[in-house]
Amino acid sequence: MQARDIAVPVPTVTVDDPVAKAVRVMAVSRLPGLIVVDGRSRPTLVLPGSQVLRLAVPKSYQEDPALARVVDEDHADRFWTELGDLTVGECVPRTSSRPVTVRSDATLLEVAALMARQHSPLVAVVDDHGALVGAITLERLITSLAVFGPDE
Amino acid sequence: MQARDIAVPVPTVTVDDPVAKAVRVMAVSRLPGLIVVDGRSRPTLVLPGSQVLRLAVPKSYQEDPALARVVDEDHADRFWTELGDLTVGECVPRTSSRPVTVRSDATLLEVAALMARQHSPLVAVVDDHGALVGAITLERLITSLAVFGPDE
Repeated sequence: MQARDIAVPVPTVTVDDPVAKAVRVMAVSRLPGLIVVDGRSRPTLVLPGSQVLRLAVPKSYQEDPALARVVDEDHADRFWTELGDLTVGECVPRTSSRPVTVRSDATLLEVAALMARQHSPLVAVVDDHGALVGAITLERLITSLAVFGPDE
Repeated sequence: MQARDIAVPVPTVTVDDPVAKAVRVMAVSRLPGLIVVDGRSRPTLVLPGSQVLRLAVPKSYQEDPALARVVDEDHADRFWTELGDLTVGECVPRTSSRPVTVRSDATLLEVAALMARQHSPLVAVVDDHGALVGAITLERLITSLAVFGPDE
């Protein structure tokens, strides 16, 4: 099997979308992460779910566990109502790491090694022009591998 | 809400369980990661899904993308049938990082900040003795927060 054989279509967001929408898209589609694309459908970022959540957690609380601890329960339940119109582009860390992508003809071993190395439960599959063809989730990969897996 | 209010029971493994079982437990329960406990039900490791997968990917392929690329497709589909009886304890990286845990009375903001900081879509909730009470997945956290979330 190749990446294209197990890739599935997934909803994406752009850097101009609100963070609240990004979290919602991920949750509604039950995805383990989110692919951010540019205007030509090319993945620019592949965020694991914890890092999509991170966009919604005010920076001060991320860095200082003691500060998060003193916020009272009612306020803590509502922290992300304060997100307002903040966009993905405004909240994403400024790093220049390459997005987690594979070519359509990558093997499942290549996909697995990439997920393991990049700590990503989501991989974007791209065509020769770098445009998104589909995505492979960790769950989808494991299910596909299980066809050939060792018996109990 | 507190961590205990949204924690759910999850299956766990020990370092003596085979890696193949760990991957299967995670997949069957549709968990985004896995909690490894000791003989007294205390979490010793909380692995994100990509790092559970990592246990099953031979080290040489993890480190060298070029090597993974030259493995032919048939062999690549079957790489994890070569796992044999390797255990979680034999495959887990030797790091002394603390497991990703929270107390039962942690707020959802504390849980969110911890997931974001530790890059973990899974958090173990422990009692005063460090024993596992339950787990909170990223999906469960987002669903719980959404009750209070901003409207579209």
